[in-house]
Amino acid sequence: MRTDGRTSDQLRNIHIETDYTKHPEGSVLISIGDTKVICNASIEERVPPFMRNQGKGWIAAEYSMLPRATEQRNIRESSKGKVSGRTMEIQRLIGRALRSVVDLNQIGERTCWIDCDVIQADGGTRTASITGAFVAMAIAFNRLIERGVIKKMPIREFIAATSVGVAPEKGEILDLCYLEDSKAHVDMNVIMTSEKEFVELQGTGEEATFSYKQLQTLLELADKGITELIEHQKEALGDIQHLIGEK
Amino acid sequence: MRTDGRTSDQLRNIHIETDYTKHPEGSVLISIGDTKVICNASIEERVPPFMRNQGKGWIAAEYSMLPRATEQRNIRESSKGKVSGRTMEIQRLIGRALRSVVDLNQIGERTCWIDCDVIQADGGTRTASITGAFVAMAIAFNRLIERGVIKKMPIREFIAATSVGVAPEKGEILDLCYLEDSKAHVDMNVIMTSEKEFVELQGTGEEATFSYKQLQTLLELADKGITELIEHQKEALGDIQHLIGEK
Amino acid sequence: MRTDGRTSDQLRNIHIETDYTKHPEGSVLISIGDTKVICNASIEERVPPFMRNQGKGWIAAEYSMLPRATEQRNIRESSKGKVSGRTMEIQRLIGRALRSVVDLNQIGERTCWIDCDVIQADGGTRTASITGAFVAMAIAFNRLIERGVIKKMPIREFIAATSVGVAPEKGEILDLCYLEDSKAHVDMNVIMTSEKEFVELQGTGEEATFSYKQLQTLLELADKGITELIEHQKEALGDIQHLIGEK
Amino acid sequence: MRTDGRTSDQLRNIHIETDYTKHPEGSVLISIGDTKVICNASIEERVPPFMRNQGKGWIAAEYSMLPRATEQRNIRESSKGKVSGRTMEIQRLIGRALRSVVDLNQIGERTCWIDCDVIQADGGTRTASITGAFVAMAIAFNRLIERGVIKKMPIREFIAATSVGVAPEKGEILDLCYLEDSKAHVDMNVIMTSEKEFVELQGTGEEATFSYKQLQTLLELADKGITELIEHQKEALGDIQHLIGEK
Amino acid sequence: MRTDGRTSDQLRNIHIETDYTKHPEGSVLISIGDTKVICNASIEERVPPFMRNQGKGWIAAEYSMLPRATEQRNIRESSKGKVSGRTMEIQRLIGRALRSVVDLNQIGERTCWIDCDVIQADGGTRTASITGAFVAMAIAFNRLIERGVIKKMPIREFIAATSVGVAPEKGEILDLCYLEDSKAHVDMNVIMTSEKEFVELQGTGEEATFSYKQLQTLLELADKGITELIEHQKEALGDIQHLIGEK
Amino acid sequence: MRTDGRTSDQLRNIHIETDYTKHPEGSVLISIGDTKVICNASIEERVPPFMRNQGKGWIAAEYSMLPRATEQRNIRESSKGKVSGRTMEIQRLIGRALRSVVDLNQIGERTCWIDCDVIQADGGTRTASITGAFVAMAIAFNRLIERGVIKKMPIREFIAATSVGVAPEKGEILDLCYLEDSKAHVDMNVIMTSEKEFVELQGTGEEATFSYKQLQTLLELADKGITELIEHQKEALGDIQHLIGEK
Repeated sequence: MRTDGRTSDQLRNIHIETDYTKHPEGSVLISIGDTKVICNASIEERVPPFMRNQGKGWIAAEYSMLPRATEQRNIRESSKGKVSGRTMEIQRLIGRALRSVVDLNQIGERTCWIDCDVIQADGGTRTASITGAFVAMAIAFNRLIERGVIKKMPIREFIAATSVGVAPEKGEILDLCYLEDSKAHVDMNVIMTSEKEFVELQGTGEEATFSYKQLQTLLELADKGITELIEHQKEALGDIQHLIGEK
Repeated sequence: MRTDGRTSDQLRNIHIETDYTKHPEGSVLISIGDTKVICNASIEERVPPFMRNQGKGWIAAEYSMLPRATEQRNIRESSKGKVSGRTMEIQRLIGRALRSVVDLNQIGERTCWIDCDVIQADGGTRTASITGAFVAMAIAFNRLIERGVIKKMPIREFIAATSVGVAPEKGEILDLCYLEDSKAHVDMNVIMTSEKEFVELQGTGEEATFSYKQLQTLLELADKGITELIEHQKEALGDIQHLIGEK
Repeated sequence: MRTDGRTSDQLRNIHIETDYTKHPEGSVLISIGDTKVICNASIEERVPPFMRNQGKGWIAAEYSMLPRATEQRNIRESSKGKVSGRTMEIQRLIGRALRSVVDLNQIGERTCWIDCDVIQADGGTRTASITGAFVAMAIAFNRLIERGVIKKMPIREFIAATSVGVAPEKGEILDLCYLEDSKAHVDMNVIMTSEKEFVELQGTGEEATFSYKQLQTLLELADKGITELIEHQKEALGDIQHLIGEK
Repeated sequence: MRTDGRTSDQLRNIHIETDYTKHPEGSVLISIGDTKVICNASIEERVPPFMRNQGKGWIAAEYSMLPRATEQRNIRESSKGKVSGRTMEIQRLIGRALRSVVDLNQIGERTCWIDCDVIQADGGTRTASITGAFVAMAIAFNRLIERGVIKKMPIREFIAATSVGVAPEKGEILDLCYLEDSKAHVDMNVIMTSEKEFVELQGTGEEATFSYKQLQTLLELADKGITELIEHQKEALGDIQHLIGEK
Repeated sequence: MRTDGRTSDQLRNIHIETDYTKHPEGSVLISIGDTKVICNASIEERVPPFMRNQGKGWIAAEYSMLPRATEQRNIRESSKGKVSGRTMEIQRLIGRALRSVVDLNQIGERTCWIDCDVIQADGGTRTASITGAFVAMAIAFNRLIERGVIKKMPIREFIAATSVGVAPEKGEILDLCYLEDSKAHVDMNVIMTSEKEFVELQGTGEEATFSYKQLQTLLELADKGITELIEHQKEALGDIQHLIGEK
Repeated sequence: MRTDGRTSDQLRNIHIETDYTKHPEGSVLISIGDTKVICNASIEERVPPFMRNQGKGWIAAEYSMLPRATEQRNIRESSKGKVSGRTMEIQRLIGRALRSVVDLNQIGERTCWIDCDVIQADGGTRTASITGAFVAMAIAFNRLIERGVIKKMPIREFIAATSVGVAPEKGEILDLCYLEDSKAHVDMNVIMTSEKEFVELQGTGEEATFSYKQLQTLLELADKGITELIEHQKEALGDIQHLIGEK
């Protein structure tokens, strides 16, 4: 039995609220258990310098936590004057994941900025960010379609992300909360598509290692969790879900 | 008649939600019209270097906006690697205002960190931050009382803040939304106590000036607005309101 | 009686020396008591990016203190690698104040850079900077007229600035020296025009508050001080004074 | 057939030169094909602040490239004034990997600094860094044993790292050179121990995805490569190899 | 004949004003032709970390230019967020030069901070800084003697500095003004003691070289100039001059 | 007799290895005793902003040390986020020295980047950098000739650099190793051409001074050392040596 009474293959409660704030083209508040992330998608009418004059778009992500999203208050990265290695890793991961299922040629020379701001953290903030950001991005692209700026949805497939891990006594578990994460021997983030293909796999044994057999069990748990998360994304998107992957 | 149908001495709709996130000692979401600010108060068991060994506490504030709190997306200050002059002005103002009504000797060598994070902006974010932060701070100090850490509420008086200004055709108005603020000739932020004393007065004629008579009208409007704002603070605080200013 | 023998409504000795250094278009050394500030005005033949292609000019100010302008040596901001919040507040204030009385359309796509460098500090450095910078700016614009670059003086009115405050035993006083400033309950900076209109009003109760009645007395003192300061500006400007506000 | 004539499961030529420079406790030049990395291990007699007073040691890694290690010259990170996200990711990865096989309690309050400086790059610099750094670290710890500072080798197992990927026409391949890496659909870095346990698994589909079956083939290739790399490490370490994992 | 009518071995007009500002322990305004530098010496009751617990003192120098000390306005180093290579070179040079003639053991664990702020530049600002800073430092140490903090003057000898160079048509010249400096083939800064010993010699052929014979002529010119500069230092110091080098 | 058995006018062993790494246009590993520096020359098809549209080229140098090039590990400048004053001085010196013997008009609007990376330090790293960088630069320019990009070698003369100094008991010595350098009273870096003209002369008495007679002896030693160093450069360059200085 896990701390919060879940079985080893059970996700926490999920809630995806759309149109959370009024300015962004796509705005989502995703809650996975006590982890809450505002995911905003903004369309900018230009691309970064290294992408110019290629007729293609770009997707860039930024990630941040409110100082008191966590149990202990953290110093703001703006006050420190630099972004931490952890933050950079996460924002590179979010951007890469979303780009893997978007046809950048179809969005023209535009950037879709993804801002993931964690207002409350309880483990799994990066995977919640990806899962929520996917929804915000789809809404933002739909707005471009409605405005006649692009013709069809440039997203090929759904993606969602979750964490799996090996816990001291409970073995392999799905969707770790902070308490579980801080004690786990092995921590793995998995990003998969609705077609059950991997987009990204990051498994780490912090002061520990893991076997091939453990890896197989972890990937089965991730598969189950991601299938459920994609159902929640579809529900949140309503009719927009049908545009994704359309020929 | 103003853009949103208000009279010149009318505040926007106000909502103060307490216990907004779970980790901070005091957590508030304040909405003033479409301006929404998360105000978190955190207690840290030490003071900044310049305050050490004086047996007194400190109140420090930080302010930030989500990149897409505004109509156009702003670059994060953490990405730019420095905090803007505007942000610094605002966080210095919030800290100074709150310190003016707290007996720092009563909180011991502790810092009360105030984090104001604007998730949606429509004018008046600094005054909303002060009004909301006051409530979060009172809740945080009350928690210290409940835990037996301090004996009595160290807050002497209520304070709240609002903006007043001179608009092109409408003259003096109370609580400017973004559209009004961007067109105003004169912009003034007023912070007052429940005893109708001034804590801070910042009036600016951007490419314009203002007369003594206009100043008087602006201060009357501010007085009316702040009286109402303090009523909302009291309601949000419930029983805690009675601890403030107690002998 | 005040520390230095002044009455409560008396300014310190004022001296404004023009043509202080040879390179700037306008160069002034202003002394107000022991506060000495070099105010240089430089004309640059371009505007900042956000002002381009509007056919208008800009006025930008920077403020700094020599490390040993004060009783204790301060670390240089260039060594610290960043400008403090206090410095940013002051330079934004100086720029805003000067822009309020200049017709930016008349100076073309040029920037008037104002550099205020405090070589000796004894309170009131920001108000002395504004008062001195006004003179340096007028001289610089006059040079543009002499060179045939612009046709008429773009300054509409005189402005000057002073500080007023509430002192522990003496009550309301004008033009605080450092010793008075460090003990004052209330500190207010006032910037006014020769027409007795306000440009900026910044009153702060540091761990204190102030009443409407006190505000009225402070504004009367400021009015008297600024009237005298403008007389000194006129004397320093000689014939140039008559160009200001000319139709 | 691959560009350089290798079969799909063939590593490039490997050379590990020990005692490369004279100052470090452990100094190695590792060459894997045309990729050359200087891996230095330095012992510092203190630990970072967050590890103090726990009686344990720490392993920290830094990674850098000479500006012209690559075909196009890169701007130095010291000139840019900040370390890139990519560099941070790599140095966090190297440190985490090495810590996973070291008993930090046995090294006392010391830091083993690992510096990986790429002098020539041709793909796989991060995996070469880990493989070489392991050897440098073992030599440095052996020096501590020789000096009587610690009693036994704190390393429990060998680890090495390699890259595998999916290439456009050739399918799954082992140890990608730069040309192969830049064209690969899927890129995976694998760190394994001599006991065939995983330490870290990072698989990324850049604008592509990969199936469970592909994952299995990639892991088999990695297993073969890492087994060979560990043989090279043993040869380079000579007698020191027998101390690793001793009870 | 030189631009300003001087002979090749003639210094510009020199003026050294002491007690220029009121706060520093030693404060000097040195004018060499149109080059004007405020040189302040401040005593701090501690030494930098690398000098602690050695019972010795330290002399540290900082150098800066007002933005409009030059014909074209320069951007402040505090705004740029970093100190230029040129500034660093100069402040290291000033500190090293002054330390060469001071017995650091005699000043105890104190730092003598030297601040050289150029308010008007016309060539030779670094040599004027050294020459003026020497005087400010002697006055500051004398104040420590007067206060009974140290027993005797810790300065062993006088030093002063000047520039010499090779000009296109005029050959070797002494004390180059800005116009001469910008055209010179060879530029040399010489720091010498009253005993005619060298403290520092920095000769540079910018896109040119110089012969042994030219070097000899340049050193003779420097010798003559420095002898005169030391006379001016003595005059400025009055009675304090006799304490320097006393047994 | 010196520590390592050399006579006072004897250089350490010198080895210049060309084509050290494969990517740069010119790549050299220079060893002078135990000092080892990788000197890479890279051609970039543009010039820095201040050189644009003049039809001329530029030579820019950067210098760095591996963290453990020295006996104690140094913190990376990229981690500190800024380049030290010492590094800036050295890279400015290397660039200036090389530019003094190159006809920048002949290389077109190109930058020759010189990267000097010290992998092992034992004194004299800046002079070894210059001596090695000259060779790398000549090879890089020769490659431009081979590719038909430029017509003739733009280098007018050979230059090399060495250090000389005054040691406590041994008097004037040539080519100081780290141990000698750290004890020397006087330290002088000399850069000379094959025509025995000076390019740069930097003599410093660290807490000491030196006489005119000592200067003469030091310059004789430098002359002897540089003559030998240029012989080594010629040998390393092979046939390319004859292109230098050709009409």
